[in-house]
Amino acid sequence: MDETDIYRKQQMGGLIGKGRRTALIVVDFVNGFIDPNIFGGGNTLEAAEATVPVLDAFRDRELPIVFSRIVYADDGSDAGVWCEKAPRLGELTENNPASHVIDILRPREGEIIIRKTQPSVFFDTNLGSILRSHNVDSVAVVGATTSGCVRATVVDAISANFRPTVISDCVGDRAAGPHEANLFDMQQKYANLIAAGELGRIFT
Amino acid sequence: MDETDIYRKQQMGGLIGKGRRTALIVVDFVNGFIDPNIFGGGNTLEAAEATVPVLDAFRDRELPIVFSRIVYADDGSDAGVWCEKAPRLGELTENNPASHVIDILRPREGEIIIRKTQPSVFFDTNLGSILRSHNVDSVAVVGATTSGCVRATVVDAISANFRPTVISDCVGDRAAGPHEANLFDMQQKYANLIAAGELGRIFT
Amino acid sequence: MDETDIYRKQQMGGLIGKGRRTALIVVDFVNGFIDPNIFGGGNTLEAAEATVPVLDAFRDRELPIVFSRIVYADDGSDAGVWCEKAPRLGELTENNPASHVIDILRPREGEIIIRKTQPSVFFDTNLGSILRSHNVDSVAVVGATTSGCVRATVVDAISANFRPTVISDCVGDRAAGPHEANLFDMQQKYANLIAAGELGRIFT
Amino acid sequence: MDETDIYRKQQMGGLIGKGRRTALIVVDFVNGFIDPNIFGGGNTLEAAEATVPVLDAFRDRELPIVFSRIVYADDGSDAGVWCEKAPRLGELTENNPASHVIDILRPREGEIIIRKTQPSVFFDTNLGSILRSHNVDSVAVVGATTSGCVRATVVDAISANFRPTVISDCVGDRAAGPHEANLFDMQQKYANLIAAGELGRIFT
Repeated sequence: MDETDIYRKQQMGGLIGKGRRTALIVVDFVNGFIDPNIFGGGNTLEAAEATVPVLDAFRDRELPIVFSRIVYADDGSDAGVWCEKAPRLGELTENNPASHVIDILRPREGEIIIRKTQPSVFFDTNLGSILRSHNVDSVAVVGATTSGCVRATVVDAISANFRPTVISDCVGDRAAGPHEANLFDMQQKYANLIAAGELGRIFT
Repeated sequence: MDETDIYRKQQMGGLIGKGRRTALIVVDFVNGFIDPNIFGGGNTLEAAEATVPVLDAFRDRELPIVFSRIVYADDGSDAGVWCEKAPRLGELTENNPASHVIDILRPREGEIIIRKTQPSVFFDTNLGSILRSHNVDSVAVVGATTSGCVRATVVDAISANFRPTVISDCVGDRAAGPHEANLFDMQQKYANLIAAGELGRIFT
Repeated sequence: MDETDIYRKQQMGGLIGKGRRTALIVVDFVNGFIDPNIFGGGNTLEAAEATVPVLDAFRDRELPIVFSRIVYADDGSDAGVWCEKAPRLGELTENNPASHVIDILRPREGEIIIRKTQPSVFFDTNLGSILRSHNVDSVAVVGATTSGCVRATVVDAISANFRPTVISDCVGDRAAGPHEANLFDMQQKYANLIAAGELGRIFT
Repeated sequence: MDETDIYRKQQMGGLIGKGRRTALIVVDFVNGFIDPNIFGGGNTLEAAEATVPVLDAFRDRELPIVFSRIVYADDGSDAGVWCEKAPRLGELTENNPASHVIDILRPREGEIIIRKTQPSVFFDTNLGSILRSHNVDSVAVVGATTSGCVRATVVDAISANFRPTVISDCVGDRAAGPHEANLFDMQQKYANLIAAGELGRIFT
């Protein structure tokens, strides 16, 4: 019995029902998570490029769009335990280009920017509250890294009873093994997975 | 360059500093996560057995001990999106033995029981607040499954600035691949990993 | 210039726009918050009686209904700092009738019960997540006490971008001064206030 | 029986035990909450002036110090329901002097700044997590307004098992009635009250 069989036998990996209205969450597609010399590399640039038409599709439909950035205080006063595991996180300050959303995905006026200091875009932020005021029950998630901030965001999304969809060619990671392993986990337990070409499955 | 090298080059995977005082979190070691016909199987029983002396060590030192159980209302009124992905979760009601902590790890009076409906023991529960009143800055995490509720709990722990340690032979999963992949992710990004025989590294 | 003028001059006390769909939150209408020898007295019984037709109105429209109860563990393992300020809170255990919703408002199958250990029904509970899955953007709040758990719940509700309405004759308090003062604060800053006879203002 | 007697009979209003280590939280002492033409007036300036020596005392002891500011996005993308009740909140953007901490209390490098969009400094922010990394179990609260953001912060503090003390001459409000009423509620239910001259009661 292979692993997918184990999950199927336990009736996991089913399809989450379609939502009424979906926001797009662009997780940490900032310069520092593209650059292989900071936290990027792997397929992160390719995933960001694949996000361009997805972003257009959400803009065309005037659906809520959220961009997250990891931003620490210049004086390090909000650095925490995570920065011990990954010390270069502390470099991601407000004015460091490494913390800025990459040019090809630049946010427009009225789109929501969430600054965060932890993996999940929901954790200790007002994202859940803001999405409530936008009458959203579902989220489509893209960004970097698949095995890090994307997965943490997806787990929090389903925990808060949002209906999560991961757009699989629009999430990227510095390394292929964790990327694949986390796509598997999310498909089995936390999200629907679709390709960028299948957006029709989430728009009503 | 293999994957560990990529993480090392980005200065991830470091050691989190030792805490002052550590609570033990026993995640979902309930009958339904041991039984291969519900959500268990794999190495979950073995991991639960390896937890017995760990639990004793925390009891000997009178450190705070937390047990989590997934418990849904009998009438399903609190079932959410996660139950669409894994419908059998809804069977885990208060009086179903599948939701009860396994006999060999039975909680004692005064130990903390957290009922939850989502993967992380911290999510939408008072665990963080209770641990504050116990003057804890660190958590040791054991339980099932490695790729599910253990990992979600560890990510929330470090996000809330607890210092997490995963006791690697005391976490179990229904399938080996996700077990190993999630141990890798946690080691690189969210926790220190130790063996049950190395508890001295977390006790001061 | 009297106090209402000060608020008006600062453009506070306006009307919150009507929501799409409203849940009823019945805060701590349990025996112990009616009984003047525990935490009740004042106008709490009168407020509970006035809630009966309100509850009927929400049931008739099949809108979500939530009841909160303060419930501490039998062994006191989850008692916190609030219990130092009000030590008798710890008596409110699962099987103590003082923690049970009063008979005239008895919850029906499928209605949501939130057990909590803190003033706000939202704090460290899954209420916000459950209401999301019920597609609710507004809450009507009744219960006891006005100056305690009702107000804390209302402040959390508006903070989470729910549209709160307090039904003023269905909230009660042990003492008249705090009751009136907190109705004033909520009207000026956090909620619309209506009488039980004006429910039409929240149903669409 | 007057109101204080009612609370005493129900064993409320007791003293919260002394903490190990206390952070100072300076709530919204920004220009816009001093200026009577925005959200200030009343005794807010007097309370801010009384805070100067309190701030010095915490700095002398090298205890953690937190300043909150209400800050909304320039494009209004994070404005929520609270802004319907008090529309001028939306003016408090990053570069508007009304959102800046008043000069006499100017934060120093390394002191924590929390930007927020809701009454409580804890709500949807990382304050609780940051205070955990500072090994704090208690908070002293000063700021404006007593009946608004101060009280909301105090209720969240005790709910999260911090030991709250309100420094009564360092909290201010636009109007005297709500100021007094909320001091009463906090004393009876959520905090110890001390005068600025009694700081010795919270330092160990």
